[in-house]
Amino acid sequence: MKTIPEIFTIADAKRGDIGNTATRYAKAYFKTYNFDSITVAPYMGKDSVEPFLSFDEKYAIVLALTSNAGSSDFQTQEVGGQMLYEKVIQTSTQWEGSERLMYVVGATKASALKNIRTLIPNSFLLIPGVGAQGGSLTEVAENGLSDDVGLLVNSSRGIIYASQGKDYAAAAASAAHDLQSRMQTILEDKGFITC
Amino acid sequence: MKTIPEIFTIADAKRGDIGNTATRYAKAYFKTYNFDSITVAPYMGKDSVEPFLSFDEKYAIVLALTSNAGSSDFQTQEVGGQMLYEKVIQTSTQWEGSERLMYVVGATKASALKNIRTLIPNSFLLIPGVGAQGGSLTEVAENGLSDDVGLLVNSSRGIIYASQGKDYAAAAASAAHDLQSRMQTILEDKGFITC
Repeated sequence: MKTIPEIFTIADAKRGDIGNTATRYAKAYFKTYNFDSITVAPYMGKDSVEPFLSFDEKYAIVLALTSNAGSSDFQTQEVGGQMLYEKVIQTSTQWEGSERLMYVVGATKASALKNIRTLIPNSFLLIPGVGAQGGSLTEVAENGLSDDVGLLVNSSRGIIYASQGKDYAAAAASAAHDLQSRMQTILEDKGFITC
Repeated sequence: MKTIPEIFTIADAKRGDIGNTATRYAKAYFKTYNFDSITVAPYMGKDSVEPFLSFDEKYAIVLALTSNAGSSDFQTQEVGGQMLYEKVIQTSTQWEGSERLMYVVGATKASALKNIRTLIPNSFLLIPGVGAQGGSLTEVAENGLSDDVGLLVNSSRGIIYASQGKDYAAAAASAAHDLQSRMQTILEDKGFITC
């Protein structure tokens, strides 16, 4: 499926099922569709996620702290002295193949990123919620950048719904370009890339 | 899609996504595919589940305590004096349209059913794990039956993988019939149906 090999593709499918089914999902997304990564839900635990972690250069991105309002229902509840999303992060780092794990942390929760970086200093984080959901790119960068950048910032609705009119293609391109140049400025400021 | 209207259909899709996406999933499964119900993951909270709860005679079945080994990673962790799956059950009963909620409770966790019935005496429970996963139908009935039965017992692999040989159709039919008659016996013993 992939036509531009240098672009890292994410199937935002949020799968989470028993091992038997997880193995089939992993094969479908990584082999049949050739995605580089897939988002997965942690609720069913280790055997629902590990089947995604045995493919070379393929990654599973675990929902940790999501950008929606409902994230406070369970994710930020206290479990043994830490929040559930912290427990999810910490537990999953012990799973087989955990070097192929990344985590979803909503841009709307940028203040939590500092704390998350103490648990996983180097893991890549997928950051939705910049754009339509109102997250701040500057705060995300301030709190979430690792030594290797470590952030995949995503905007979906902010780009694809940039306009409902006939100018939608130009509006989407403009929204995408705007976000990209704001990211570039931050990365230049932080010394990750030189102008 | 449904060809036998009296059969209650379940899309075991385990969806769990932001409201915008949940609404599209609900329309797809309930309208396009005409399923009666769908399994949903609770990790993202209220706004990821409520979009499934506004369709007449359609049900969302929330993952509570699943039958797999990984259920102990998070579901049975203590959150404010109760286990996470109990918190999920209790919280979700407050959601808009919660009369259209059912819950997944694995047959391998039959001992937890008594306690679950104190939280939700009348809700229907979808019980996987009888068969391939080793759950006991007798224990499930003993602990989980409500005044209206309240149990949907499911066996998938125990039936579809009853044989790998050429006799698979007959073997699957036999496994299905065996489970059905064991259920019938229990329901007769408990006085739900008369012989």
